[in-house]
Amino acid sequence: MLRILNNSVKISKYATGCVPQVLRFASNASSDLVLVREQNGVREITLNHPKTLNSLSLDMLCALQDALLKDKDSVDLRCVVLTAQGKIWSAGHNLKELHNDPKIQACVFQKLTDVINDIQRLPVPVLGKVNGYAAAAGCQLVVSCDMVVCTKNSKFSTPGAGVGVFCSTPGVAVARIMSRPKSAYMLMTGLPVTGEEAYVSGMVTKAVPAEELDKEIEEITNAIKAKSRAVISLGKEFYYKQLAMSQAEAFSAGQEKMCENFQLGDTKEGIASFFEKRPPNWKHN
Amino acid sequence: MLRILNNSVKISKYATGCVPQVLRFASNASSDLVLVREQNGVREITLNHPKTLNSLSLDMLCALQDALLKDKDSVDLRCVVLTAQGKIWSAGHNLKELHNDPKIQACVFQKLTDVINDIQRLPVPVLGKVNGYAAAAGCQLVVSCDMVVCTKNSKFSTPGAGVGVFCSTPGVAVARIMSRPKSAYMLMTGLPVTGEEAYVSGMVTKAVPAEELDKEIEEITNAIKAKSRAVISLGKEFYYKQLAMSQAEAFSAGQEKMCENFQLGDTKEGIASFFEKRPPNWKHN
Amino acid sequence: MLRILNNSVKISKYATGCVPQVLRFASNASSDLVLVREQNGVREITLNHPKTLNSLSLDMLCALQDALLKDKDSVDLRCVVLTAQGKIWSAGHNLKELHNDPKIQACVFQKLTDVINDIQRLPVPVLGKVNGYAAAAGCQLVVSCDMVVCTKNSKFSTPGAGVGVFCSTPGVAVARIMSRPKSAYMLMTGLPVTGEEAYVSGMVTKAVPAEELDKEIEEITNAIKAKSRAVISLGKEFYYKQLAMSQAEAFSAGQEKMCENFQLGDTKEGIASFFEKRPPNWKHN
Repeated sequence: MLRILNNSVKISKYATGCVPQVLRFASNASSDLVLVREQNGVREITLNHPKTLNSLSLDMLCALQDALLKDKDSVDLRCVVLTAQGKIWSAGHNLKELHNDPKIQACVFQKLTDVINDIQRLPVPVLGKVNGYAAAAGCQLVVSCDMVVCTKNSKFSTPGAGVGVFCSTPGVAVARIMSRPKSAYMLMTGLPVTGEEAYVSGMVTKAVPAEELDKEIEEITNAIKAKSRAVISLGKEFYYKQLAMSQAEAFSAGQEKMCENFQLGDTKEGIASFFEKRPPNWKHN
Repeated sequence: MLRILNNSVKISKYATGCVPQVLRFASNASSDLVLVREQNGVREITLNHPKTLNSLSLDMLCALQDALLKDKDSVDLRCVVLTAQGKIWSAGHNLKELHNDPKIQACVFQKLTDVINDIQRLPVPVLGKVNGYAAAAGCQLVVSCDMVVCTKNSKFSTPGAGVGVFCSTPGVAVARIMSRPKSAYMLMTGLPVTGEEAYVSGMVTKAVPAEELDKEIEEITNAIKAKSRAVISLGKEFYYKQLAMSQAEAFSAGQEKMCENFQLGDTKEGIASFFEKRPPNWKHN
Repeated sequence: MLRILNNSVKISKYATGCVPQVLRFASNASSDLVLVREQNGVREITLNHPKTLNSLSLDMLCALQDALLKDKDSVDLRCVVLTAQGKIWSAGHNLKELHNDPKIQACVFQKLTDVINDIQRLPVPVLGKVNGYAAAAGCQLVVSCDMVVCTKNSKFSTPGAGVGVFCSTPGVAVARIMSRPKSAYMLMTGLPVTGEEAYVSGMVTKAVPAEELDKEIEEITNAIKAKSRAVISLGKEFYYKQLAMSQAEAFSAGQEKMCENFQLGDTKEGIASFFEKRPPNWKHN
């Protein structure tokens, strides 16, 4: 069972909306909770609070949300990579923050759900990159990315029951990726699975040797950048929509979406480039 | 195709409820159909009728149900392990019992569904332990446990079509664990899959060498025993509830369940023990 | 990204129903688009237009549909194997045909959905056999077969976004077989997965060395032929029906289906043969 190190509560300028006013006070370090670097259309967001094992405090979640949503509709943003500093990708929620105020609890759980929804609604793909240990809400967060690449030595667990808090919300995420005998194991025993097991069970897209992680991420981001942002955005939105439908509804809605897709300027360009045997010149619309 | 050995029909004191009165007569052996052993909170239930290949007769199902439900709310019960005597874990329903009375058929199928529901509603985790061959309803039963650990040489099949009875109800279970091209294969061909294939396809939690089976089971039961029964029970109940929900509903219900979880006495103790860096002292409430 | 070779549009005698009258003109080659060979109850349908990379033109889909549905209720038909000529199993829809007429687009997408529904409603199992590359709608088609066996060197991809057409309908199929982090990868990057990866992710039933492909297919078709057509048909129909139900509904409907199954003549024969320790003599009813 992963034990979260002590962490002084900091709920700061990042925390807006649901946080009771009294809890908002300044934190001098909050702006460093996540690092954001953007290059050639790829925004890399790094959880950057190793001393709390990158715990998903309300501050951290707010900083992450800001980093995800900033200029999200800009044509220059093509892909997001979510990663973490240190050997613990994230140990999950911050127990110190959570343990005795029901209002804070409700607020923190809602914020994580919001962030997951933001990830899945973002018009560009979000790629989780894991080289370390993702536990509890940290596991929930990373497997909620559109795709996940991890090292074979990475570990994933939902160990909350060990401190009396069953990982019920992380369970919503893992049970929708792995089969029941696998996700029930993670939740009811709290024991970790390795990157390799996570791969076999469908929890992650790929599990690679540590020295190949950057290359694998680059191959994926390059593949995304080679395409039209408008096409990927239309496709991603429909992807999540159809997941909630029956097969019959989904095929019917898919046919309509395909026809709608053909109306995009970039689709005409893509097909023209194909017939003219030249690279497409995307306008991203 | 697994061929079930002849087995004289015995519907006895175990069969209650849906069984027509006329069919209830005493069986001198029925009390040995399952063996029950309980130690340190782990109840081991062993299917114990190798001469019928542990066929799931109405008697067997009733004996199993009794063994599962006995003192189910006792704080002393922390985990159930379901296993079997002999090389055939279970060959499935008893054809001799089933073959010519529609009332008995309906009764037997309902009883198996009841047992599966009992397993999933039990307040403690149920762990299937397989070292052998689980076929048809036997396959359905074991993969309906919360978790399953098998040996790599174990086999699983749904071969009913070979004697004219398509494994429709076992199919409900396997199709919810494996992908369609895998479960359709099992059902439409009746061919078996090995423990290793069962692992890769998500049908079981782990497939281990025979000599590691006991150790693996012990690791799991120890992990469960280290936790609060009340927390595991709350978590297991919600786990099955959320599986039937959309992702959006499930996250919303999960957030409420997490807040409810924090109200448990054992949660306060778990968090206190965490901050005080000592083992928790669970009261299981 | 797979590039489809030029292909003159041919919409011919095969295209009926939704195709605007003006587009129906004769194609002298259309009758060779698929090859059909039937032997001992196994109908092998081969996509046979390698020069268009077996593109799923409206003509091809109509020819395929005809080949699937012909005498579908004949007792002599026991199993269908769907395969392809050449190294490209199918490159997907025919872009030349699709690119500028919304009526044709709607018609082609609807026809593929119809063919997939036909496959899943056919009273006998349909087995995809892949030794090569299945892309886009070609991937959708083959993974919509009841079972799929491929060579380890086969590849599967949904690369449509590369020419501006996100594989939204293929996504409906792959997202129902693979976990989200896997299917999202295929759709959002367009990168291929190998036969081995397809196996691990649940996309196919088996991935075998090329020299074992025929033997594996034969083992499956033999297993199907050893059973009653009526029993397999009843089971297959229920299999797809229950997939759309909750677990509780599905178990309840399954119990009824099992009782109905026992009323078949072949079930009585199957059980009798079992007790008499002789091979069953199926009447297929």
